[in-house]
Amino acid sequence: MHRQAKYDIRSVRKLTHSELVQQRLTVTNVATAPRHPIRLIAEDVRSLYNVGSLFRTADSFLVDTLVLTGFTPTPPRKEITKTALGATETVPWTSFSTTAEAIEAQRRDGYTVLALELTTTAKQIDAMSTTDYPVCLVVGNELTGVRPETLAICDGAVMIPMFGVKHSLNVAVAAGIALYELVRQLP
Amino acid sequence: MHRQAKYDIRSVRKLTHSELVQQRLTVTNVATAPRHPIRLIAEDVRSLYNVGSLFRTADSFLVDTLVLTGFTPTPPRKEITKTALGATETVPWTSFSTTAEAIEAQRRDGYTVLALELTTTAKQIDAMSTTDYPVCLVVGNELTGVRPETLAICDGAVMIPMFGVKHSLNVAVAAGIALYELVRQLP
Repeated sequence: MHRQAKYDIRSVRKLTHSELVQQRLTVTNVATAPRHPIRLIAEDVRSLYNVGSLFRTADSFLVDTLVLTGFTPTPPRKEITKTALGATETVPWTSFSTTAEAIEAQRRDGYTVLALELTTTAKQIDAMSTTDYPVCLVVGNELTGVRPETLAICDGAVMIPMFGVKHSLNVAVAAGIALYELVRQLP
Repeated sequence: MHRQAKYDIRSVRKLTHSELVQQRLTVTNVATAPRHPIRLIAEDVRSLYNVGSLFRTADSFLVDTLVLTGFTPTPPRKEITKTALGATETVPWTSFSTTAEAIEAQRRDGYTVLALELTTTAKQIDAMSTTDYPVCLVVGNELTGVRPETLAICDGAVMIPMFGVKHSLNVAVAAGIALYELVRQLP
């Protein structure tokens, strides 16, 4: 089998569970670890599996708080826990019945609130300013996105560059990309 | 309601369907549009919903080809089509029974083959080289990741920086983040 020489792949193997554990936070010390100044509001997310996936992603990127609003289901729910793979225990989360209350609470904590949505004034997610942080991202319903009345009270919107026919991503995928970018550009 | 002045949010609204249509490719012209020199191999992905999500993401990032290997289910399947939201019609895709055959085929087309996996030699996904392109990413099973025998014949591996307790992401979320990054760093 021919092989390109760009990489040294001698003895390449997956990191073992114990090697990964050494690199990562534990359930005990994550509770007091400093977290990234990034929060996520999930408004009207219908799917329990998407909510579970958001918890898992929020754990991976050490998001400060996951905020569930509207009819987004909250733990404990079997399907959330299953998909979250334990992240419901490691991610600080809270819920509000309305997104407006949630946004006000984030503002009181000094967060800039940006919708992840294709709007007339959205800027590209890879062009964050240092003054955008601490930042709270808002994602919305699987079919209808962020509510117009929520968009109206956000500080702005950010969008993921898309190139195809459909111009939409699964909400958990979109949130994952956006949170990855917000961490990558942390000032 | 108080509002920060960082953004001009006068008359902020979602882009309409017709505004989005003007910006994007159509089902007709996508077939001949130049696509990004990025491919995705999905090995042993069990969930039909994850496969559907991979199609949707591959459409959004105008991935050249989606390659399904091992026991990854292939279209037409109702659950894939539903989750893909039509992207099974807009994304060029193919399948191989073994990933080894698939990798050989990508190499013949000049693609560098990189596993998305936490390995002893994985480099950060945000540190691609221009010589890595055209690039074919390999993602694996939801529970077990990319097979060891596949890792052994890849040109290398890339990883997404993770900070939490779990050190894992849903495969569709991870693929979305990685494809986003591969497009962002296109030489």
